[in-house]
Amino acid sequence: MTHPHLPNSADTALRARAAKVIPGGLWGHLNAKNLPEGYPQYFRSGEGCRLVDVDGNSYVDFMCSWGPVVLGHHHPAVEAAAEAQRRLGDTLNGPAPVLVDLAERMVDMIPHADWCLFQKNGGDATTACVTIARAGTGKRKLLVAKGSYHGAVPWCSPSMAGVTTEDRAHILHYDYNDIASLEAAVDQAGGDLAAILVTAFRHDMARALDMPDPAFARRMRELCDETGAALILDDVRAGFRLHLGGSWETIGVRPDLSAWSKAIANGYPLGAITGAERWREPATKIFTTGSFWCEAVPMAAALATLTELVRLDGPAHMKAMGERLRAGLSAGAAKHGITITHSGPPQMPLMLFADDADFAKGSAFCSASLRAGAYFHPKHNMFLSCAHTPADIDRAIEAADAGFAMVAAIG
Amino acid sequence: MTHPHLPNSADTALRARAAKVIPGGLWGHLNAKNLPEGYPQYFRSGEGCRLVDVDGNSYVDFMCSWGPVVLGHHHPAVEAAAEAQRRLGDTLNGPAPVLVDLAERMVDMIPHADWCLFQKNGGDATTACVTIARAGTGKRKLLVAKGSYHGAVPWCSPSMAGVTTEDRAHILHYDYNDIASLEAAVDQAGGDLAAILVTAFRHDMARALDMPDPAFARRMRELCDETGAALILDDVRAGFRLHLGGSWETIGVRPDLSAWSKAIANGYPLGAITGAERWREPATKIFTTGSFWCEAVPMAAALATLTELVRLDGPAHMKAMGERLRAGLSAGAAKHGITITHSGPPQMPLMLFADDADFAKGSAFCSASLRAGAYFHPKHNMFLSCAHTPADIDRAIEAADAGFAMVAAIG
Repeated sequence: MTHPHLPNSADTALRARAAKVIPGGLWGHLNAKNLPEGYPQYFRSGEGCRLVDVDGNSYVDFMCSWGPVVLGHHHPAVEAAAEAQRRLGDTLNGPAPVLVDLAERMVDMIPHADWCLFQKNGGDATTACVTIARAGTGKRKLLVAKGSYHGAVPWCSPSMAGVTTEDRAHILHYDYNDIASLEAAVDQAGGDLAAILVTAFRHDMARALDMPDPAFARRMRELCDETGAALILDDVRAGFRLHLGGSWETIGVRPDLSAWSKAIANGYPLGAITGAERWREPATKIFTTGSFWCEAVPMAAALATLTELVRLDGPAHMKAMGERLRAGLSAGAAKHGITITHSGPPQMPLMLFADDADFAKGSAFCSASLRAGAYFHPKHNMFLSCAHTPADIDRAIEAADAGFAMVAAIG
Repeated sequence: MTHPHLPNSADTALRARAAKVIPGGLWGHLNAKNLPEGYPQYFRSGEGCRLVDVDGNSYVDFMCSWGPVVLGHHHPAVEAAAEAQRRLGDTLNGPAPVLVDLAERMVDMIPHADWCLFQKNGGDATTACVTIARAGTGKRKLLVAKGSYHGAVPWCSPSMAGVTTEDRAHILHYDYNDIASLEAAVDQAGGDLAAILVTAFRHDMARALDMPDPAFARRMRELCDETGAALILDDVRAGFRLHLGGSWETIGVRPDLSAWSKAIANGYPLGAITGAERWREPATKIFTTGSFWCEAVPMAAALATLTELVRLDGPAHMKAMGERLRAGLSAGAAKHGITITHSGPPQMPLMLFADDADFAKGSAFCSASLRAGAYFHPKHNMFLSCAHTPADIDRAIEAADAGFAMVAAIG
């Protein structure tokens, strides 16, 4: 079946140039080779929840830059705060006062938090959490859920290329939401358990998302309390979308340490760790730093972002918009006689097609929806933002109709 | 001996607030507790090579934010380029075209470079270089100079707090500039050598700096060629100050992989790896990524920074200003009958006092010079920028006279 392509000559030209100077065209998760046919690699601009690619095609976006853009591109309050700090200074010989303002805000907002540290990458935060846990316990073993993503550095990268077995020497695995497997992994760690790492919900790629079972989370808390290990919540991906006090506030379980990044500064680069009092001294003992970790502009942007998220009740807005999207997609699928399932929190939804192990339907749906003006993802959780309005959602549902028609047509 | 303090009530108040919400007051290398008495922790603003602390004290700065600020704060061409990109978009669902422009520029400027990758931290770059070297060789051992700094992550952090012995399982050491020790370490690696890491010059803290011995560098190149290991130049700290093609162009030895960060974007957060053709395929194979690694604004800032560095011949300007500073400091010391030594490249100088193992003289010199308006460092290499003019240097030399007078007074 043939269909009109979107204009893509500028994108094609850039890809040809990039093929010469960037290995594989692009590193990592934003490489368009992992996306359905027709997806652009290069973008010209963003405004609110709209993206424009280098060929001028415009989309209602449901990836939000894979999480960071939580208020929408060019949010005026965030940009004003960033610009005011920028006029003073950004990377200086030490922090600007906004560091203290932001750390105080984090400690105020996040019930488990008695202190805060800042970094640049989510992986900086998860790695330093692990280091703090080891420094605080004098123990080594880390429990990680099978298949969970915690960053792209040797101890946790999803790839073993260039990674040694020693980089993973003290990693033990459990199954997300499986208490028996968690208990078995704790046993396996013997007296050497430093930390249990857990993502806010199970958001592994290419499978249905699972919310955390409260009984599982409570058991994890008990096991950490019994053993003295740190419960590290990796809230890098979900943070500030489900609950402003940390994603597990929704189920009433508090971590010892949390890793944050992505949405914290509406696209400005920042990571953070919050921790409970017991972990302050080990956080002081470890050496963790980076050339740009005291950058003031992203901190000013973060302070404004958090203020706006509170003012708007961002999680509630994103939930409502996600539910509206789900209802529209369900109706659209039903209209075409197609079976779909929704999973994950409405703020970070995933839609899967029945009988679609190879994602052929999901990819066809996404490609056709993209041509009609909506940027969805077939395999990875999507992201809502506070910039999505009911009209944007309805526009995307309309675009999705083209996607469902394509799926119906290919059978 | 008593002396007037600079006003510091705002700094003191911020430190008191930070003590509650940030472990140890501040993480890492910018913590003022590691600086001489009287140094401020918090900064209000920067302009060119001048810094203003939160109490309004103004300094001619010789740390340049510990490297990043190579053209001076608020450089108009950099800010204009950044702002133009910012109006379009920063963190999007993929890169902006400036990614390709910048990668092409790096490949054009840097003789050993056939390709380029971007990150956020210097440590992201050094870590990924190691991963690429291991992926490309199928080997594991890394040779690192004793005492060299390559980042603050477990495999290379200067602290073992929270670090396991397995994190260092495959690290072997040599002595910088010592061919025999290098050959011995290569032997020790047996057939399992993945890479030799080396900083652009020996810039370990709290000792005289050593330039690389060309014979040592050539032998390192030979050993890598013989064994198939990667020669990884860690140019994170020195990059773009000594030579725009990479710091070892000054001695005619080309690395396989180089890690860059700090000065690349005049304070905007960016890291980079450049590599030779042979390492392109392993660079494609590894998984390395971050939420903000495709951020477009720092890339636009980097492109403008590199353009300005070429236009101004930045390394030559910084060298001339560093030499002027050295001459002035030497004259000042001589006037007071004080023996000092200079080490390192003029662009990244260090001045040490004779008979000063505890840095009492260096600290007293710095504290007094600070009060007189120059921000020096007693133990760590300093940094010149293109914003330093002869008048700024002369102003700093004048301030240093107060420093030398203090050293003479304390004997």
